[in-house]
Amino acid sequence: MATERQYREQIVRYGRTLHERGFVAATDGNLSVRLDQNRILSTPTCMSKGEMRPADMVIVDIEGRLLSGRRKVSSEIGMHLLIYRLRPDVQGIVHAHPTTATGFAAAGVALNQPLVCEVVIGLGSIPLAKYGTPGTPELTEALEPLVPHYDAILMSNHGVVAYGTDLSQAFMKMETVEHFARIALVTHQLGHQQPLGAAELEKLAVVREKYLGGSQSEPPIPLRSPAPANGNHRKKAAAESDPVAEALRRRRVSQ
Amino acid sequence: MATERQYREQIVRYGRTLHERGFVAATDGNLSVRLDQNRILSTPTCMSKGEMRPADMVIVDIEGRLLSGRRKVSSEIGMHLLIYRLRPDVQGIVHAHPTTATGFAAAGVALNQPLVCEVVIGLGSIPLAKYGTPGTPELTEALEPLVPHYDAILMSNHGVVAYGTDLSQAFMKMETVEHFARIALVTHQLGHQQPLGAAELEKLAVVREKYLGGSQSEPPIPLRSPAPANGNHRKKAAAESDPVAEALRRRRVSQ
Amino acid sequence: MATERQYREQIVRYGRTLHERGFVAATDGNLSVRLDQNRILSTPTCMSKGEMRPADMVIVDIEGRLLSGRRKVSSEIGMHLLIYRLRPDVQGIVHAHPTTATGFAAAGVALNQPLVCEVVIGLGSIPLAKYGTPGTPELTEALEPLVPHYDAILMSNHGVVAYGTDLSQAFMKMETVEHFARIALVTHQLGHQQPLGAAELEKLAVVREKYLGGSQSEPPIPLRSPAPANGNHRKKAAAESDPVAEALRRRRVSQ
Amino acid sequence: MATERQYREQIVRYGRTLHERGFVAATDGNLSVRLDQNRILSTPTCMSKGEMRPADMVIVDIEGRLLSGRRKVSSEIGMHLLIYRLRPDVQGIVHAHPTTATGFAAAGVALNQPLVCEVVIGLGSIPLAKYGTPGTPELTEALEPLVPHYDAILMSNHGVVAYGTDLSQAFMKMETVEHFARIALVTHQLGHQQPLGAAELEKLAVVREKYLGGSQSEPPIPLRSPAPANGNHRKKAAAESDPVAEALRRRRVSQ
Repeated sequence: MATERQYREQIVRYGRTLHERGFVAATDGNLSVRLDQNRILSTPTCMSKGEMRPADMVIVDIEGRLLSGRRKVSSEIGMHLLIYRLRPDVQGIVHAHPTTATGFAAAGVALNQPLVCEVVIGLGSIPLAKYGTPGTPELTEALEPLVPHYDAILMSNHGVVAYGTDLSQAFMKMETVEHFARIALVTHQLGHQQPLGAAELEKLAVVREKYLGGSQSEPPIPLRSPAPANGNHRKKAAAESDPVAEALRRRRVSQ
Repeated sequence: MATERQYREQIVRYGRTLHERGFVAATDGNLSVRLDQNRILSTPTCMSKGEMRPADMVIVDIEGRLLSGRRKVSSEIGMHLLIYRLRPDVQGIVHAHPTTATGFAAAGVALNQPLVCEVVIGLGSIPLAKYGTPGTPELTEALEPLVPHYDAILMSNHGVVAYGTDLSQAFMKMETVEHFARIALVTHQLGHQQPLGAAELEKLAVVREKYLGGSQSEPPIPLRSPAPANGNHRKKAAAESDPVAEALRRRRVSQ
Repeated sequence: MATERQYREQIVRYGRTLHERGFVAATDGNLSVRLDQNRILSTPTCMSKGEMRPADMVIVDIEGRLLSGRRKVSSEIGMHLLIYRLRPDVQGIVHAHPTTATGFAAAGVALNQPLVCEVVIGLGSIPLAKYGTPGTPELTEALEPLVPHYDAILMSNHGVVAYGTDLSQAFMKMETVEHFARIALVTHQLGHQQPLGAAELEKLAVVREKYLGGSQSEPPIPLRSPAPANGNHRKKAAAESDPVAEALRRRRVSQ
Repeated sequence: MATERQYREQIVRYGRTLHERGFVAATDGNLSVRLDQNRILSTPTCMSKGEMRPADMVIVDIEGRLLSGRRKVSSEIGMHLLIYRLRPDVQGIVHAHPTTATGFAAAGVALNQPLVCEVVIGLGSIPLAKYGTPGTPELTEALEPLVPHYDAILMSNHGVVAYGTDLSQAFMKMETVEHFARIALVTHQLGHQQPLGAAELEKLAVVREKYLGGSQSEPPIPLRSPAPANGNHRKKAAAESDPVAEALRRRRVSQ
């Protein structure tokens, strides 16, 4: 368990990496860490994520009220709070605009084709949330049905949000989304996709359980059967029309 | 308020960044800072922007006459002087040829589709100026109607110019133009755009005022009503056929 | 001949490079070195290849049993063992997911057009293995017919594996695959390919022999006549329908 | 005038840059500097250009005979010697395979559309030489008609060669070729080109003379009238069907 000071440094480091990789421009993007049940450590508004210092962070409570920090809270804090509320397993969140994935989000195209086996293992698929004006409840309403079922989401005409059991996991998921978007774009440029079929997806679900069983982290949501909602972080509607989730669900039901 | 020495170092640093990011090749590009009402600090001609030293800069007056510096003045100084004359709020200018945005400028395609909400908030849209031979009055004539209404402009068959209340703001706008061009290009590669509608643009205008109200910097021009020209940096013609500006203007008029 | 310590450091260094270049995301990819006839030094599972230390490596025997190391063996070790068994000349292996080449592998398109002469000299062509679920015998069965004839292979819906007489050679081949994939993708984007004809391929075979004759490394397989299998690392089936290998073979037969 | 030691270090530095930028993979590419009338300092064969040391270079005479150096001469030395023979003004040469420009060269598409004014000023246009097997006289025969008229050439199914009055100039021209190829590719991806017309090209020729008049370096060839060959480095045939050279030539003839 890291100290608050270490979390601040982590945010600075991943912020710089986001900028170096071109995942954000200008003052785009934001990162946060859940310090405890009621306190979220977050990047402030109106700063380049490549030039922050540990003291620039703000701390808000779970309703978004500023608890400490000299800078202003980001207008996108509502999105972070929604995710922390719906997903008790999540401790870190990264929001950015990596260009390829954001291009899919601006084209209205989800990254939900099972084109690469390790992306299916790691993230299942990456859905596209409908557009909502940033800084308004529209945005969180658009994300709400998807957050319980996915660990990374394309946000229409906006960007990407990814989250995990710590900031490093969240960052690696963001990295995977853009990595996969680049691969998927190449298949569009070649004019041909060769997605995995249902039989292959079922075999991947077996491998996935074995793979994740040995790790510390809770298995991501999308490949689980979304049927019986247990607790407030399991909702049904979302993954319904997702071919990857659909195929993987068949296997679970037939067991 | 920085010293002249600090401005020279800033130009060196942003010049190096331009080159590292591939925003310029060879001796392309130029940067400048307004030192005071009559003096502009600028990069010299015929040097790689990745290899300048503080002493390489030249100082010119507002008519472009060399005041100090051992090197020659860039032939593109006229573009800088035009912007400083038309926009009293501008203190720093960056001109470069980032490959994706310059590709749009060589294809004759403006970056004026509202595909990403934070680009609408930050820049409105990025228009395409008609072509003018560099180093001639043609070039400044092509830019003149656009400068009052936009903070970043594509220059046909040439590159991009961006400007702001300091060099850092100007650089971040250049960064946003290329970042957005990459996103927009992906939508072209996917064969589909999902632009924001007029209702969404009006809501963004509200968010934008709130967002910029809290910052130090003057709100960028494109989302303002261009109707009554106040002072010499408000002209009418330009933004007329820009769908983003158009939609945002409707909201202002109806208030 | 390097020491085990040096091999561990080599793996750390090339792992970091893979990550820096965007050839892997999250915990993707793996690298290995053959220490001696029965011992393989390999990257562990579930770690970012950009953040490994020499002590993180595992050592397995040629059947994949853990001999030493605190971490878990990668589920992809079977692929490495297959290659070491079929190719006694191979001492180092790199598996990664560089985005362009993996895009070809997800589109079902082999990199087997002779578009660039130095790629023909260095690798012949890069075939596409059929898909096999990772961590299962399916994957090694898909690779088996190709390993004797090629030094780098696209793996459908997965990524790329490359191997050579040491880790540096293996890495350079991985680099060449992605470099060539980017070049080939541009030809698709331009809508036109101008591949080398049979006569040019025959001349390249002559140059290639001269070029490789002077180097220390064993000539790669694809340009050799695959006809009479000598030893267990020469199999026939694979390169049959490969136009590059085909054209080059004609020359050898006619000598 | 630099010392031989400084030239060796320059080659090491530009070699590393070529590799870092992805302009070469594996052992691709080569660089050279003319030391005096009869001695060429060149990179050796079979080495990564990212890992050379000053002592790795070889010195050959103008016929390509090894004068000093422990390593072997590159099989592509013939291309360098041709350029030094035909162009007495050239003191440095860079040959590489930057992916976008090499994609054009593998597609059979020259970079000869006047899409960006500063590329016209700097290089005129970049022609496509026909294919010739590397390390054979075919290759130099393919380049010979173009070398007198251009400072950078696409080599079909191979890569790019660029040269200038020193290695830095040669490298900047290589950089410009790839930079321009990326811009031109975007216009293809957008499905639209807006090239400069003959009138604009004539105005650029005027600007160009003024611009280059103030610099130390001899003006590049392509914009000069190729009519009366003066000396052995002025040949006629080549630029005949080049629209950029054609338009610019009209202006010169009419003066």
